[in-house]
Amino acid sequence: MLSALDLARRIEAGTMTPAGVIDRCAAAIEARDGEIGAFAALDLGRARRDAQQNTKALVSAPLHGLPVGIKDIFETVDFPTEFGSPIYAGNRPHTDAVLVSLVRRAGGLVLGKTVTTEFASLQPAKTRNPHNLGHTPGGSSSGSAAAVAAGMLPIALGSQTGGSVIRPAAYCGVAGFKPSYKLLPTLGMKGFSWYLDTAGVFAAGVADAAFAAAAISGRDLRVDQGEPTPPRIALTRTHIWSQASDAMKAAVETAAQKAAVAGARVSELMLPAIFEDAFDAHGIIQDFEAYRALAFEYDHARDKIGPILRDQLDKAAAITVEAYDAARRTTKRARQKLAEVTNDVDVLLTPSAPGAAPKGLGSTGASIFNRLWTLMGPPCVNVPGQRDEMNLPLGVQIVGHFGDDRAALAAALFVERAIAN
Amino acid sequence: MLSALDLARRIEAGTMTPAGVIDRCAAAIEARDGEIGAFAALDLGRARRDAQQNTKALVSAPLHGLPVGIKDIFETVDFPTEFGSPIYAGNRPHTDAVLVSLVRRAGGLVLGKTVTTEFASLQPAKTRNPHNLGHTPGGSSSGSAAAVAAGMLPIALGSQTGGSVIRPAAYCGVAGFKPSYKLLPTLGMKGFSWYLDTAGVFAAGVADAAFAAAAISGRDLRVDQGEPTPPRIALTRTHIWSQASDAMKAAVETAAQKAAVAGARVSELMLPAIFEDAFDAHGIIQDFEAYRALAFEYDHARDKIGPILRDQLDKAAAITVEAYDAARRTTKRARQKLAEVTNDVDVLLTPSAPGAAPKGLGSTGASIFNRLWTLMGPPCVNVPGQRDEMNLPLGVQIVGHFGDDRAALAAALFVERAIAN
Repeated sequence: MLSALDLARRIEAGTMTPAGVIDRCAAAIEARDGEIGAFAALDLGRARRDAQQNTKALVSAPLHGLPVGIKDIFETVDFPTEFGSPIYAGNRPHTDAVLVSLVRRAGGLVLGKTVTTEFASLQPAKTRNPHNLGHTPGGSSSGSAAAVAAGMLPIALGSQTGGSVIRPAAYCGVAGFKPSYKLLPTLGMKGFSWYLDTAGVFAAGVADAAFAAAAISGRDLRVDQGEPTPPRIALTRTHIWSQASDAMKAAVETAAQKAAVAGARVSELMLPAIFEDAFDAHGIIQDFEAYRALAFEYDHARDKIGPILRDQLDKAAAITVEAYDAARRTTKRARQKLAEVTNDVDVLLTPSAPGAAPKGLGSTGASIFNRLWTLMGPPCVNVPGQRDEMNLPLGVQIVGHFGDDRAALAAALFVERAIAN
Repeated sequence: MLSALDLARRIEAGTMTPAGVIDRCAAAIEARDGEIGAFAALDLGRARRDAQQNTKALVSAPLHGLPVGIKDIFETVDFPTEFGSPIYAGNRPHTDAVLVSLVRRAGGLVLGKTVTTEFASLQPAKTRNPHNLGHTPGGSSSGSAAAVAAGMLPIALGSQTGGSVIRPAAYCGVAGFKPSYKLLPTLGMKGFSWYLDTAGVFAAGVADAAFAAAAISGRDLRVDQGEPTPPRIALTRTHIWSQASDAMKAAVETAAQKAAVAGARVSELMLPAIFEDAFDAHGIIQDFEAYRALAFEYDHARDKIGPILRDQLDKAAAITVEAYDAARRTTKRARQKLAEVTNDVDVLLTPSAPGAAPKGLGSTGASIFNRLWTLMGPPCVNVPGQRDEMNLPLGVQIVGHFGDDRAALAAALFVERAIAN
């Protein structure tokens, strides 16, 4: 994999150029993207020209001219934007999504668009898991996670409505960062559920993801300067723990043990029953809003929507305003409760997914270990570094306090290092 | 003016057809839009055809085939969408904004796009006030307010980031409804500040606006069935009361007196000092986000941005993340405080604008009586019905509790009727 931080330091030190980084990406793409299928659109030539023509300005910019992949759910003026749907074949937006503009402002070079599932839904797309081509890379940010995992990109953008950043990051063995709700702007990103849609970042390791998010947002999110303080961690199994694989249970418990050995204070947290209601509320809110967010497509081109999403929207039409409002009220109560019960810890530790990437490409896996956290809105980080018996990556998830994204990233880095020891 | 409710009842009763309503709009447009300039795009022919071909389905739909004007800040697939900016000349989006889809789902016929100021900012556009062509109609939803005021449309959509629904409604003497934040979806609406941007509705009177919002959202917001209960009203002058004209002060006090005579319990509320901080926080949040929301335009076509907005964005570039975060924290505290201090009243009564529409077209007037409420997020309603010494409309504002939009509309209707008596 390409460490964004390592590359940025080399560029700063003058031992590497932005164009040289593109060459490394190009070599990995050439070698592996034929079988992985991480890109929906790619323009190495333009990125090389930009890198060569603006070297001086790029070198001193926050992203130092690093190549960035953009999930094809964000509008881009210079690449087709198809949202993973034939309804948008050849679509060329008039502008860049706000986050794409911020990447460019920060001195990032957009190398291409990465594959998204259809409208960032559960309907799988063509991408395969770089660790085993017969397994799903997860979704919906399939291409972004796979491209980083295969060393084709040091940084990629994604989005999460259910578990679309944390789950593919876990399945592909990379760091995924879903920031606090709306920390990264979503204007110009195709919406699925406006109460849930959250933009996020993929990179090789936790410190790389923090570096990228800091550069793009202009926020103090870097965690690579100095050792992270040992955090207070609450191991949180949640009510669906029994649906985690044995390997995942072991991975979470190993992470907790190793973090404790490294100096973290580890406790256990049993979530009160309201979080089971909140878990259910997620689906109601998501589907009620999706039936509206995709109204144009559903009303004018329903036959061009894939069967999984079409069925989801057919059912969503029946969700009442009353059920939606009740789900919103449950969410509000659960958020207050979450602040209460996590008051004396820094972060929670919980699975990133039920297990390693499932076999087959007919499903992108389940977001059951992500939905609650997307709904609650706090920062979540997938911490890579463990493997199952088939040598597939297993990711564990760090959940922080809303608005304190830096602390979540620092704790995730601490756990990542503890696991590596 | 065209009462949406009255027209809907006639269509239901079979004494009028959707095509007949379009004819009435067409006559008013023919007579007055040459001098008012409310439309950015118009297609009477298509609306007539749709009305004639789908009469039966439209008659029984929630909006009964009524014509609707869409502020040109919402994407539409069948009209150019220019956001009031030459950067988007001839822009044809691939889809409808979600709210436009919901209008069509509810059986509304989109007659045209109404003029917006540039990206819904303070930079004025061509529209004139129907009550006096030498005066501004207000902004940024200039065309929507003016079109309803001139009887050219029974319903129009707008949006508010500062005071862009309530102020033009007040200046043009129509009802304006800014619902609770995100009650109406904003996906596909050009963003200016994602924390503030709120979609809203214009109609002739309060009950008309409630009818339209109910039909579009599928929510129980109608207030035309039965008499509204006398509300508990807190007359709220705010710290900028001295900036209201004498006529506006009198209009608010008259509304309070007449509501009391009609049976409302009227008290007075002095807002604590934190709301002055919140007032200032609005500008910081708005401008910080606008510098990002309009990043593509600012970075690629700064010379095509008008001088008022360009200057605003130039200054906004200097707002720090720390100042923005502090403004967000102030907002959170002020929202909690607002819930506390308004606990024993149903609504607040306060000016909709500093006075009647100012003379001249070089400014759309000030949003100082709106910013705080946009930031706090509760439902706001402009109640028309009073006039100043020049016979220009004066609007007073009803502010409800967040999430209880129906109660705010019912109280506004109560005040509207009290004023009329």
